[in-house]
Amino acid sequence: MSELKGACIIGQSGGPTSVINASAYGVIDTALHNPSITRVLGAEHGIKGVLNDRLFDMGKEDPKELELLKYTPSSALGSCRYKIADPDVDDTDYKRILEIFKKYDVRYFFYNGGNDSMDTCNKISKYMQKVGYECRVMGVPKTIDNDLYGTDHCPGYASAAKYIATSCMEVYQDARVYDTGMVCIIEIMGRHAGWLAASAGLATEFGAGPDLIYLPETNFDLEKFLSDVERIYKEKGNCMVAVSEGIHYADGSFVSEAKTSATDGFGHAQLGGLAALLANAVKERTGAKVRGIELSLLQRCGAHLASETDIEESYMAGKAAVENAVNGITDKMVGFERGVQGGKYLCKTKLLSLSEVANTEKKVPREWINAEGNGVQKAFIDYCLPLIQGEPNLPKQESLPRFAKLKKVLAK
Amino acid sequence: MSELKGACIIGQSGGPTSVINASAYGVIDTALHNPSITRVLGAEHGIKGVLNDRLFDMGKEDPKELELLKYTPSSALGSCRYKIADPDVDDTDYKRILEIFKKYDVRYFFYNGGNDSMDTCNKISKYMQKVGYECRVMGVPKTIDNDLYGTDHCPGYASAAKYIATSCMEVYQDARVYDTGMVCIIEIMGRHAGWLAASAGLATEFGAGPDLIYLPETNFDLEKFLSDVERIYKEKGNCMVAVSEGIHYADGSFVSEAKTSATDGFGHAQLGGLAALLANAVKERTGAKVRGIELSLLQRCGAHLASETDIEESYMAGKAAVENAVNGITDKMVGFERGVQGGKYLCKTKLLSLSEVANTEKKVPREWINAEGNGVQKAFIDYCLPLIQGEPNLPKQESLPRFAKLKKVLAK
Repeated sequence: MSELKGACIIGQSGGPTSVINASAYGVIDTALHNPSITRVLGAEHGIKGVLNDRLFDMGKEDPKELELLKYTPSSALGSCRYKIADPDVDDTDYKRILEIFKKYDVRYFFYNGGNDSMDTCNKISKYMQKVGYECRVMGVPKTIDNDLYGTDHCPGYASAAKYIATSCMEVYQDARVYDTGMVCIIEIMGRHAGWLAASAGLATEFGAGPDLIYLPETNFDLEKFLSDVERIYKEKGNCMVAVSEGIHYADGSFVSEAKTSATDGFGHAQLGGLAALLANAVKERTGAKVRGIELSLLQRCGAHLASETDIEESYMAGKAAVENAVNGITDKMVGFERGVQGGKYLCKTKLLSLSEVANTEKKVPREWINAEGNGVQKAFIDYCLPLIQGEPNLPKQESLPRFAKLKKVLAK
Repeated sequence: MSELKGACIIGQSGGPTSVINASAYGVIDTALHNPSITRVLGAEHGIKGVLNDRLFDMGKEDPKELELLKYTPSSALGSCRYKIADPDVDDTDYKRILEIFKKYDVRYFFYNGGNDSMDTCNKISKYMQKVGYECRVMGVPKTIDNDLYGTDHCPGYASAAKYIATSCMEVYQDARVYDTGMVCIIEIMGRHAGWLAASAGLATEFGAGPDLIYLPETNFDLEKFLSDVERIYKEKGNCMVAVSEGIHYADGSFVSEAKTSATDGFGHAQLGGLAALLANAVKERTGAKVRGIELSLLQRCGAHLASETDIEESYMAGKAAVENAVNGITDKMVGFERGVQGGKYLCKTKLLSLSEVANTEKKVPREWINAEGNGVQKAFIDYCLPLIQGEPNLPKQESLPRFAKLKKVLAK
C-alpha cells in the first residue's frame, strides 16, 4: 500500500438518529489526528454540500464542541435525501463532485447514512475508479431502521430501541391506572422492516410492555387484530399494542393508507396517522376508551435515552472507516460482527463491499416473530438486549441537554 | 394536642404524574415509622378503593420495593376520576366511607391528587367533622398541570416540564436537518392552564426550542397564527411551534374541537388531535413540509427524565402531610413556598385550607406571556428553571427502568 495524502470529506445523509453524530465524530476525530489526512471537511447537507461547494473546515472547530457530537442527536452537518442519477444516464453530478474533489485535493470520502446513502456512496466510488481519480470511499452505516444488509446491526438502532422500550414501559404504567380500562396503541417507525416495533418487546420481556406487536414482516389482518385486542381487553381490562408504521394488508397496501371498514367514513389517515386510525377501529368494535400514541421524531432524536453501547459502536464505525481508508481500503462499508468474550457481548467491525450493501434490506427473520404474527420471540430479545446497554454520561446545562455548537466555517 | 392513634389511608386520584408515587412513598414511609399510626392502608383506585373495601396493607410490602416508588411513574395504587356527591344531596358514599373508617379504625386520611381530588378530600373532611368522627384529613398535591391554588408549584409539574423542554430541544435538532425546511407543531397537555406548554420556552431559552408558544391564557387567532408561522418559515426556512391542547378562540371554543377553515372538509379533530389539525392548516397556507407531534401520555409518565428536585419535593409533601396530621393538623393541603438560601432556590412546605384549594385554578400570569401571546417572558423561565434541576439516580435492570413491584395484599 502506498500512502495517500489529501483532504477528506465527511457527509451525513438520510434520516438522522440519536447517535449519527457519534459516527461523524469518530471520522472527524480520527481524521484530524491522522498524518495522511491533510484537512477534514464536513459537507453541508450530505452530497448536496459537495455539489454546492458548501464544505466546513472541521479543523476550525473547538475540540470540546466536537466531542459533544457524541451526545448530540440528529445530523449536525445537515442531511439530505438527494437521489444521485445513474452515471451512465446523467453524469453531471459526478463531474461536479470530481471538480470539487480536485479543488480541495479530496482523497478520502466518508459517507454516513443508510441504504440510499450507501447507493450514493457506491456510485461515487465506482465513478472515481472509472475516471481514474485516486480517492478512497467508505460508507459509515447509520439507521434506526436497522435494515442494512450484511451487518449484525446498525448504529442508531439500539438507541431508538431503548427509547421505544423505555417509553412503552412508562406508558404501560400510565395506561392502566384507572379501573375503567383502556386500549393503548403505540405507533413506531419502520416502513419496511420491523426492528424498531419489535424492540417494544423488550418492555414486554420485563413485564410492562405491549400485549400485541405487529411488524411489516407479516401481513396484517384487521379482523384478526380487532379480535385479538377484544379478547385481551375482556380478559385483562386493558390492552397495549405496538404497531410498525409499515404494517400492510396481504395485498401489500399500507394499513395507514388504506381505509378500514371502521374508518371508511372519513379515512384521512394522513391527519392522525396509523395509531389514531387503529384506535378508532378498536373503539368502534369494543367501546373501550382508546388512545393512539405516535412516537414520531421523538424516537429517533431521543439522545437522552441513548445506549452507551450504541454511542461507542457508532464512534468505532467512523474511526474504523478512516483507519481502513488510510490503510489502503476503499469501496467498502464498515459493518458490525457480533462475538462473545468471556460470556459477554462483543462487537467488532468488518468490511462489506458497497455494491453488496447498496439498496438491500434486512428484515426481522420470520422465526423471531411468533406464529400468530402478533409478538416477538425470545431470539429477538437475546439479539436486541445487549445492544441497548449502558447509560452515557450526558453533558447538561441547567439540567437540560448541552448539545454541540459548531461554528461551521466554510473552507476556502 | 392529644395523641390520636389509628390506621391511615393513602389514596391517589386524578391523572397520574411521573412522581406521584414519590409523594405516596413520602406518606407510606413516614407513616410506617410513626408510632401514632398503627397501620398503613393503600386504597385501590383512590376513594373507590375505600367505597369498595379494597385496601392494601402497605406494611406487608418489601421496603426495597416501596423505595422504588420514588422512581416509578403513574399511580401505583391505581387512580380514579370518581366525582363524589354533595353530602347534602346524597350522603350514601359518605356513610360508606365512615363505615370503612370505623371498620379499620382509620384516623388519618391522605389524598394525593389535583383540583378535583382536593374537592373530594375537602368534602370528606367536612363530613367527618360534621358527624364528629375524629379523623385528620390531609391533601397531598400533585398535578402536571401546575394549576393548584395557593402553592408556588405542584409536585409532578417540574418533571413533565423537563420532559417537554428536553424533547423540544431534541426535536429541534431533528426538525431542521434537511435544507428543504419544515414546520413542526408540538402539542402539549394543559386544558385550562398553560404551565406545561410554557415549559417548552425553556428549550427556546437555551437556543433550541419553539419559535412560537401558544397558551390557553390568551385567545387563539388562527389567522394571526398562520401569518406568524409563515413569516418565520420564510425567514428561517424552519418553524417550530408549541401549543397547549387547551388553546381556544375568543368565543371560548377549543381549537381542537372547532373546524378551521383549512380543515372544514374533514375536521375529524378527535382522530389526529390539535397538532395534526394545525399542521394541516399550515400546510395548506405555506405548502411547507409539516409535522404534528403530540407528546400525549409520554409527558406525564416520562420518569426517566424526572427532576430530582421534583422527586424530593414530592416525597417531602407526603412526609409533611403525615407529620402535620400526627401533630394535630387536619383539613389542610400541603403546599410549597419558594424561598432563597445563599442565593439558591429553596422550597418549604406550607399548609392551605382544603376549602380554599378545592376547585380553584391557578393560571400563568398574563405578564409572563409576551404581548403578542405567542411566547413566554424571562419571568416564567426564572420561575420554572430551578424546579427541573437534578438528575435522579434511576434504578435500572438491563438498562431499562426497574419499577416498583407491589404485592398489594388486601387488608383484613
